[in-house]
Amino acid sequence: MRVAEISRAAVLPQAGQPVEIREYPLPRMEDGAVLLRTKYSEVCGTDVHLQHGHLSGVPYPIIPGHVNVGEVVETAGHPTDQDNQPISVGQLVTFLDVNETCGRCWYCTVGKASTRCPHRRVYGITYSADEGLLGGWSQFIYLKPGVKILPLPETVPAERFIGAGCGLPTAVHALERAQVMLGDTVVVQGSGPVGLTAAILAQLSGATKVIVIGGPAPRLQEALRIGADEVIDITRFDIKSRKERVLELTSGRGADITIEASGAPQAVNEGFSFTRDAGRYVIVGQYTDLGDIRINPHLDINRKHLDIRGCWGSDFSHLWRGMRIVEKYGERYRWEQFITRRYGLDEANQALDDVAHWRTVKALIDPWQRSER
Amino acid sequence: MRVAEISRAAVLPQAGQPVEIREYPLPRMEDGAVLLRTKYSEVCGTDVHLQHGHLSGVPYPIIPGHVNVGEVVETAGHPTDQDNQPISVGQLVTFLDVNETCGRCWYCTVGKASTRCPHRRVYGITYSADEGLLGGWSQFIYLKPGVKILPLPETVPAERFIGAGCGLPTAVHALERAQVMLGDTVVVQGSGPVGLTAAILAQLSGATKVIVIGGPAPRLQEALRIGADEVIDITRFDIKSRKERVLELTSGRGADITIEASGAPQAVNEGFSFTRDAGRYVIVGQYTDLGDIRINPHLDINRKHLDIRGCWGSDFSHLWRGMRIVEKYGERYRWEQFITRRYGLDEANQALDDVAHWRTVKALIDPWQRSER
Amino acid sequence: MRVAEISRAAVLPQAGQPVEIREYPLPRMEDGAVLLRTKYSEVCGTDVHLQHGHLSGVPYPIIPGHVNVGEVVETAGHPTDQDNQPISVGQLVTFLDVNETCGRCWYCTVGKASTRCPHRRVYGITYSADEGLLGGWSQFIYLKPGVKILPLPETVPAERFIGAGCGLPTAVHALERAQVMLGDTVVVQGSGPVGLTAAILAQLSGATKVIVIGGPAPRLQEALRIGADEVIDITRFDIKSRKERVLELTSGRGADITIEASGAPQAVNEGFSFTRDAGRYVIVGQYTDLGDIRINPHLDINRKHLDIRGCWGSDFSHLWRGMRIVEKYGERYRWEQFITRRYGLDEANQALDDVAHWRTVKALIDPWQRSER
Amino acid sequence: MRVAEISRAAVLPQAGQPVEIREYPLPRMEDGAVLLRTKYSEVCGTDVHLQHGHLSGVPYPIIPGHVNVGEVVETAGHPTDQDNQPISVGQLVTFLDVNETCGRCWYCTVGKASTRCPHRRVYGITYSADEGLLGGWSQFIYLKPGVKILPLPETVPAERFIGAGCGLPTAVHALERAQVMLGDTVVVQGSGPVGLTAAILAQLSGATKVIVIGGPAPRLQEALRIGADEVIDITRFDIKSRKERVLELTSGRGADITIEASGAPQAVNEGFSFTRDAGRYVIVGQYTDLGDIRINPHLDINRKHLDIRGCWGSDFSHLWRGMRIVEKYGERYRWEQFITRRYGLDEANQALDDVAHWRTVKALIDPWQRSER
Repeated sequence: MRVAEISRAAVLPQAGQPVEIREYPLPRMEDGAVLLRTKYSEVCGTDVHLQHGHLSGVPYPIIPGHVNVGEVVETAGHPTDQDNQPISVGQLVTFLDVNETCGRCWYCTVGKASTRCPHRRVYGITYSADEGLLGGWSQFIYLKPGVKILPLPETVPAERFIGAGCGLPTAVHALERAQVMLGDTVVVQGSGPVGLTAAILAQLSGATKVIVIGGPAPRLQEALRIGADEVIDITRFDIKSRKERVLELTSGRGADITIEASGAPQAVNEGFSFTRDAGRYVIVGQYTDLGDIRINPHLDINRKHLDIRGCWGSDFSHLWRGMRIVEKYGERYRWEQFITRRYGLDEANQALDDVAHWRTVKALIDPWQRSER
Repeated sequence: MRVAEISRAAVLPQAGQPVEIREYPLPRMEDGAVLLRTKYSEVCGTDVHLQHGHLSGVPYPIIPGHVNVGEVVETAGHPTDQDNQPISVGQLVTFLDVNETCGRCWYCTVGKASTRCPHRRVYGITYSADEGLLGGWSQFIYLKPGVKILPLPETVPAERFIGAGCGLPTAVHALERAQVMLGDTVVVQGSGPVGLTAAILAQLSGATKVIVIGGPAPRLQEALRIGADEVIDITRFDIKSRKERVLELTSGRGADITIEASGAPQAVNEGFSFTRDAGRYVIVGQYTDLGDIRINPHLDINRKHLDIRGCWGSDFSHLWRGMRIVEKYGERYRWEQFITRRYGLDEANQALDDVAHWRTVKALIDPWQRSER
Repeated sequence: MRVAEISRAAVLPQAGQPVEIREYPLPRMEDGAVLLRTKYSEVCGTDVHLQHGHLSGVPYPIIPGHVNVGEVVETAGHPTDQDNQPISVGQLVTFLDVNETCGRCWYCTVGKASTRCPHRRVYGITYSADEGLLGGWSQFIYLKPGVKILPLPETVPAERFIGAGCGLPTAVHALERAQVMLGDTVVVQGSGPVGLTAAILAQLSGATKVIVIGGPAPRLQEALRIGADEVIDITRFDIKSRKERVLELTSGRGADITIEASGAPQAVNEGFSFTRDAGRYVIVGQYTDLGDIRINPHLDINRKHLDIRGCWGSDFSHLWRGMRIVEKYGERYRWEQFITRRYGLDEANQALDDVAHWRTVKALIDPWQRSER
Repeated sequence: MRVAEISRAAVLPQAGQPVEIREYPLPRMEDGAVLLRTKYSEVCGTDVHLQHGHLSGVPYPIIPGHVNVGEVVETAGHPTDQDNQPISVGQLVTFLDVNETCGRCWYCTVGKASTRCPHRRVYGITYSADEGLLGGWSQFIYLKPGVKILPLPETVPAERFIGAGCGLPTAVHALERAQVMLGDTVVVQGSGPVGLTAAILAQLSGATKVIVIGGPAPRLQEALRIGADEVIDITRFDIKSRKERVLELTSGRGADITIEASGAPQAVNEGFSFTRDAGRYVIVGQYTDLGDIRINPHLDINRKHLDIRGCWGSDFSHLWRGMRIVEKYGERYRWEQFITRRYGLDEANQALDDVAHWRTVKALIDPWQRSER
């Protein structure tokens, strides 16, 4: 007898439409599959973009929620983790949302850029609800055979990991691209979940000055809590004075490394302006197309001898490395404090609205929470 | 008694004015200095920009000519080369145009980005004619103490080295930034001296397909002569068909690496469009400010997971490495064939005009040539 | 009806024993599998070590032959290549000998070092003949589902590719580790197939001086043929004079990069002695355990500020990149000329003996050749 | 009138002899020079080796003491720091011990390996006492024109900086070579000043598990104090059990990165044994020749696909970056607690003996301290 008959899920039926609750039967278990009873999912900025239809190639209806924690309630065959240890009923796990990276195409083998594998499918984003319980805003999640599962260490509470959420692997990847050196000054543009975790990881990568440019105030307070040396509130300072402040903090040279995690196209112009000559500019926040900007190739790139690095997606290494960070530094950074509010499935539209309007740092989805209404 | 009393030089008196001939007394020799009897100088696109006033901070009047070959006619004290060998009268040498890199400032010591040292001065560009014979369009050139001198190997004729000219160290630096791997496809945008030598160096760095996009026809014939696998004539194909051609030649993926050596701002847009996901885009051609472009941070950089690398100036390593290449591969590539025409000092304005209008691949200045008029 | 009933194969029954001919039925085709009619296999130094039992973990009996070319004679399901193109009967292909790299373990995902994946199995080395036709010294080769197949371009004759053989991907990997810069001097220790192709690839990676140290004379003649600037015959010069020669050729500094491809443990000592300070030493030849050496950590590594890089195995990118090189530079380097002699299956023991005693550069196995006896 | 007439100094007259006190007149100030009243110097393991004559090319008699803090008491001309700020009387500064790196030779320009510049001279090591007050065990230190001076930030007490001492730039350089990634496990071999600061910097570079192998107990207590996750006492555990412990702590794989900072040649063998496949091994401790070891190139390097990186000396960037670290993390790591004891000049021989026998973590030299005897 199975743990349940059906799973309630919050479904995004179409771009531009509100989320609605649907019920699905539990899936038939393929060999190697795992069934999770969802503990927590989250709302990330991408989910807002999904609702607005800003991403191409999304097979609506979808069950959102790409980074999740769940308890293993069923296994079929002998699924294992990356250390070849068996996955067992009762374990608390997360998993890499990116699946079906083929390992065979040119990008996977020769290009060694698996985040550009054309075969990859993403839980909560590019799997359709018609294909199964393949997103986290659902009471159960079906992990297809081969999904890369990562157990939570005992010392990592589910709230802490989900507080870091999808910003964790994303920021790990961004910092990998950033190649911070001991003593560098790093500016992070954006104080959402990616920006805040990037600000943590910049410190853990050797930066001795970390400046967060963002807003509103509660997010910047979080930035200070997690160790940012300086915050600059975009709701209070204009572009010119923000640049002046960065130069003032960097002996007039500008940031050694800037990490764009805001998503605003114009942030790229601003970042170019205060990154030092021969510095590095990592773009991780431009996840959706919000329009063009004007740049000057001579002044912005060539004469600056600037490195600009786009950073797309993440792979299992980023999730694994991120988990090591949360395990080691959980008490220092307490990512669970990023969670501003918990929402039941019935409140998903409210959650999306709160995220869209920056009323939260991190919005948690608890599919088993009874509505507060 | 000295080798001569005075030196004729072609001087750019002011931005926007024609070059004029002036005469200067030979300089007093400081300890460690070297006096060259100029064999050849060259006209590069930068000289056209200098005449048009496109560069900031130029101390007009200047004697243009930043890459030069000369014969040592006087030395003071005991100047040496990088192998600690004495520099002797009669030697044929070139020298690094960039001088006074301080070795002490933050960029030189901590940033390890000496091409951004604020103290650097450049022969033919940022030294004034009022300071001495510090440019190559002159019968004699004064090498201040500490200028980095590089003897020409016996097997490298002066014409060959100057045929490569300032495009050589520039392209070596660009290829250093490009990090070509064996089997890569490299697109070079621009078929001037930098582009052509970049196309040579791409081959020598392991690329198995090198595509040059440029024009006009004589330059593309040079591109084919030096081994480009494909040339695309911008005077005959529009942007859309150029992109299609690149994709067709790269299994639909685009170039692994693109090197922008055209100087046209819009080339950057075009290059983004046909560089593959997770590829690399090196900008070396945007040496002067010719205006803005519009880009889309999401599509052009972030989703592509693109690396963009500005490449400014060059240091002695690029000149030294470039000389090794010319020494080894001189007979294969015969850079002297890039020289379309030789000009005396009296013809400098004609030379600038020919370069400005792409009538040459490489214009050589011979300060001792009697006018053909 | 199938193309044949049985396949003759040359089998190594046990370490220390001669090869013997056995017959096997053709395999049942799993979904996604491909059957090749072997065109050519080769004998590499590893095969000699396999016969002598120098490798651990070899599941004798085995069918040797890890790099092979064959004609597709059967397919099951829809196997494809890395560009997602179908593999069709009649195609001439090679394939990556390394199979079953899991793509899931820590080394594959986090370590990004798939050549250290514990699950990998290698055709001709770590597959047993009891498991099937999984080595190239056989008239037919069974490509299990998922084996990475690479079609030969039309312009690459089978002889040319097999002349390069397993030295090709191995040398591509070694050069990837070597990170040659334009103008570097590279010493290659060893003039067998890996060393010779490394000497080619060093040139194609930007080295302007390539010195091959090895022997005997016919191999060094091949080294000169493929463009080595200097060869040093170990049968004529002792260690001291070899070092002196390298220093003489490098302004007394030593090699920028040395690639050890000889397999002799003492070569490592010799290589340390003539690699320059802050240079790089790539060890690719020490494929089997032939004993210890004495080194001095202070003088050999620390004070030299030396980089030493072990290079184990290869992955599909190395095979793919190597194929691009052979495709582009086939006429220049004519790898088929490395083939000293062709052997039928009956002559496999003779072939092993000839390779063991350096009587060949490359020994080709043609499983369909009638014995010359 | 000058601040003093003479300077007392502790001088090492010859290899194998005890230190003796000598008096020197204050030097004539060259243009650009700076005179320091020494605040603190230190005793490092190198000083013990200097006394024992383990280094070649030392111009005895020398005044030891290569990393020092002093107060500026005289300047000549207009010396500046790397930010072009004037150096003024009264400032508390340190300086890079390595001087006269030429900036012109092949290693400085082409090799970009200035720590191998043949012209470099080192305060306290390769300057003779006959040349002046060029070492820190002296009441005054003469900074020649061009010595790279670094002011101590106001928040960095002299004791704190000297507690880190020469281990600071050395460890910064070692970590630069180590390229730690977020989530790595780093083993540090050696618990002296270099090892302890390396253990700090490994944490600050992203390592989530840092294991220090060393002794005796007081040093390991310091290791735990500064955040090592595990210490392994070499006086209590043999080589076999040390390796087992490392494997146990790393899921059986071994360390991602090992930093050798012990100086014992056999530590290299031990380190090879527990560094994981495709890991990295940085050798920074083998500063003097203490003999040979036996290694197996196949097992230790090739099959492991290991990177081994020698790390020699340091440059100004390492000192500058180290200062940023001490400035930022001074309160967390309190390097001043490494100082076990302060010695006057008269006690220099005692200090050397205490360092030689591991009775201290860091021995401070205060040239103005009256003898405690």
